Amino acid sequence: MDQVKVNLEDREIPRQWYNIQADLPTPMKPPLHPGTGKPIRPQDLAPVFPMNLIEQEVSTERWIDIPSEILEKYLLWRPTPLYRARNFEKLLDAPVRIYYKNEGVSPPGSHKPNTAVAQAYYNKVFGIERLSTETGAGQWGSALSMACQMFGLKCRVFMVRVSFEQKPYRRLMMSAWGAECLPSPSDRTAAGRKILAENPDSPGSLGIAISEAIEDVVGDEKARYSLGSVLNYVILHQSIIGLEAHKQMEKIGEYPDVVMGCAGGGSNFAGIAVPFVRDKIYGKEVRIVAAEPTSCPTLTKGPFAYDFGDTAMTTPLLPMYTLGHDFLPLPIHAGGLRYHGMAPIVSHLVKEGLVEARALDQIEAFSSGVQWARSEGFIPAPETNHVIAAVVQEAKRAKEEGKERVILFNWSGHGIIDLAAYDAFLSNRLTPYELPDEEIQRALKTLEGLPKP
Amino acid sequence: MDQVKVNLEDREIPRQWYNIQADLPTPMKPPLHPGTGKPIRPQDLAPVFPMNLIEQEVSTERWIDIPSEILEKYLLWRPTPLYRARNFEKLLDAPVRIYYKNEGVSPPGSHKPNTAVAQAYYNKVFGIERLSTETGAGQWGSALSMACQMFGLKCRVFMVRVSFEQKPYRRLMMSAWGAECLPSPSDRTAAGRKILAENPDSPGSLGIAISEAIEDVVGDEKARYSLGSVLNYVILHQSIIGLEAHKQMEKIGEYPDVVMGCAGGGSNFAGIAVPFVRDKIYGKEVRIVAAEPTSCPTLTKGPFAYDFGDTAMTTPLLPMYTLGHDFLPLPIHAGGLRYHGMAPIVSHLVKEGLVEARALDQIEAFSSGVQWARSEGFIPAPETNHVIAAVVQEAKRAKEEGKERVILFNWSGHGIIDLAAYDAFLSNRLTPYELPDEEIQRALKTLEGLPKP
Repeated sequence: MDQVKVNLEDREIPRQWYNIQADLPTPMKPPLHPGTGKPIRPQDLAPVFPMNLIEQEVSTERWIDIPSEILEKYLLWRPTPLYRARNFEKLLDAPVRIYYKNEGVSPPGSHKPNTAVAQAYYNKVFGIERLSTETGAGQWGSALSMACQMFGLKCRVFMVRVSFEQKPYRRLMMSAWGAECLPSPSDRTAAGRKILAENPDSPGSLGIAISEAIEDVVGDEKARYSLGSVLNYVILHQSIIGLEAHKQMEKIGEYPDVVMGCAGGGSNFAGIAVPFVRDKIYGKEVRIVAAEPTSCPTLTKGPFAYDFGDTAMTTPLLPMYTLGHDFLPLPIHAGGLRYHGMAPIVSHLVKEGLVEARALDQIEAFSSGVQWARSEGFIPAPETNHVIAAVVQEAKRAKEEGKERVILFNWSGHGIIDLAAYDAFLSNRLTPYELPDEEIQRALKTLEGLPKP
Repeated sequence: MDQVKVNLEDREIPRQWYNIQADLPTPMKPPLHPGTGKPIRPQDLAPVFPMNLIEQEVSTERWIDIPSEILEKYLLWRPTPLYRARNFEKLLDAPVRIYYKNEGVSPPGSHKPNTAVAQAYYNKVFGIERLSTETGAGQWGSALSMACQMFGLKCRVFMVRVSFEQKPYRRLMMSAWGAECLPSPSDRTAAGRKILAENPDSPGSLGIAISEAIEDVVGDEKARYSLGSVLNYVILHQSIIGLEAHKQMEKIGEYPDVVMGCAGGGSNFAGIAVPFVRDKIYGKEVRIVAAEPTSCPTLTKGPFAYDFGDTAMTTPLLPMYTLGHDFLPLPIHAGGLRYHGMAPIVSHLVKEGLVEARALDQIEAFSSGVQWARSEGFIPAPETNHVIAAVVQEAKRAKEEGKERVILFNWSGHGIIDLAAYDAFLSNRLTPYELPDEEIQRALKTLEGLPKP
């Protein structure tokens, strides 16, 4: 009987997160204050984030202890199993061994609680009583709702309207965990009202929802904003995925030729990737690939530039690949991949040539996802389908070249709340989509006049 | 750091199922042919089930080997983790240690694939090309859809209409796995058409859907019927839950004072219970408790009688606790607990005093389920909420008595496709419900004229 799962016992859970900033060959550009154009100072961020998280954001310590209160919550679903996808391998009939880290086993069904639990904890310790956040497909909003409930914080979630309407179960999940969920743009904030005045039918976007959530907390001493991706400390918290996977691969004497993840804001991808990027920096041969959708090709078609993280231009200017802060991606179903920018850490790694990026069409993604569900059983999230499609491409290449390849990827979440998207695919209501160049050029105009990195 | 999960490695998965029929102190009554009133013979069942499963149904061998083709599929999610519910324990503040077997980690999110995979395999080996079945909440239908896909069989599912309408995601899940799902009563069968003629708005019931699924295969050489509960071989396949839990408890030097499960048809309950029932038969002190809903109180208010498994009176007469084969439970949300009868094995164990039964109201069940979700994270299925409510009662009793108690229960599935039911509960749209005695008396009239056990 061939082994399928590689477990870690509770006592083997990593006790520290890994901070890639300690090992970068070249330093990252600093975020800039949009008013002064100068590097942002910790105190500038204090109305939005608690100081203990701001300290993590700028830390260059390599290893950061995970507090026991967080470990205790992690143990509810972590360490997550590493699987070998033997049935999918058979289907592909290529010389590959495919390993995947199953982050779908968490209560909300994705990798998001890795940072949600940490953020709720640090806010709690800092004396905060309420968190506000945005969510796209709802993976992040539901994870933060659960985490806030666990630490006794109130939680308000601005959910991109198109997802709010398409995914009622995600908001019901948030209320089961005691949070308040509003469709964005909403009339609760000036940012939301402005968008609604221009376009009452706006489907919303992550950028808009971020603006609303930030506005919702600024000026409230006991409230802070929480972001589920993009930031350095989010990637720090998500590094536990890669640290566990690294141990698990070692347990069975394997090392990946290629490490892959889907990338929207960059957090699940970086989470599995950073320990292997570190190996690569120190000379190990390994390819690291980020899979993004052709409908929002930030890494493959956007420039590396300073840009706002949100639509209302309230955040610091971040050095990143971006399609421009007012880019409004089509409402395709992989809501978690529809962000105009990309985590500065991931952007930096791509710019430095440590990470490759690849764009995949949603039809190819869903087609691979259905193959997966019908062989491995587990139904992947639409976001996850994009990396599965990239894995299929890798396997085909391995077959053509006649070369063995060990693939490791992050199965970032399950798709059983996204079944309407599968229905659309199976009944031929999804269409291939490549973002027209004119659309990109138009959106990039919003970068004019901003500082250049 | 306190341990939360007890894992078994892939190589530790049980290689044999356990058959409680080998250890019963008194023999079970045989099922009867409804025409002759005589014990049913294997060949009578041949148009409905494949002979290899019929042989399992009547087997009294204690241990039955699990074929390697089935083990290979089991390993996609089995062995499932045994958890200690430390956060829930803290909330209850009672002298209890609560362990739960997390069957929600399977691809469809419940214990159902344990027998679905086995049944699909045995049918395949017997040369069958298509399976037909019924489903209530959809847990069973989705599990069989997945299993059929894995072994290359076609699958048709008759889904109780009220659930078909309330739970669109369940049927989308079935199509993602390539099955055909129809609302029952349907106009595809004589049984369905008869019900629709009497009541075009019939919400359906498991009994009706069973009739339709059986009618759908009888006469088709290459098609057979598949049942997700009630039968002896279903409980045989589900015994893997209890066998794993037994090993896991042993690993940490624990033994339960009480073993609990929710009971609709009886399969998840018996699955975790039978290895412990065996211990009890051989002198071990352990209580075994089945939790059913007050809206369908088969074990607590029904008589032990011979009755049909379906509404159209097409099945053999089974010796079981029953509310009468035309009993139509109210459309409460725990669709999987709405069956008029109870597995003959479970019924026998209750009659012999080896198992206790308890009925719980859905308000109490959901209230416990929300407490669970807000402390342990995982959102339980509405069915599972009933056993959680029973666990809460046990904990309260332990506190009152000032006595320590180790509780083991089967967390039969997650509820993230049942969030509409949580929404109804949280917005006070659910009401307490106890089945009126007159209603029971009326339904029991259908037993008149049938043989008595």
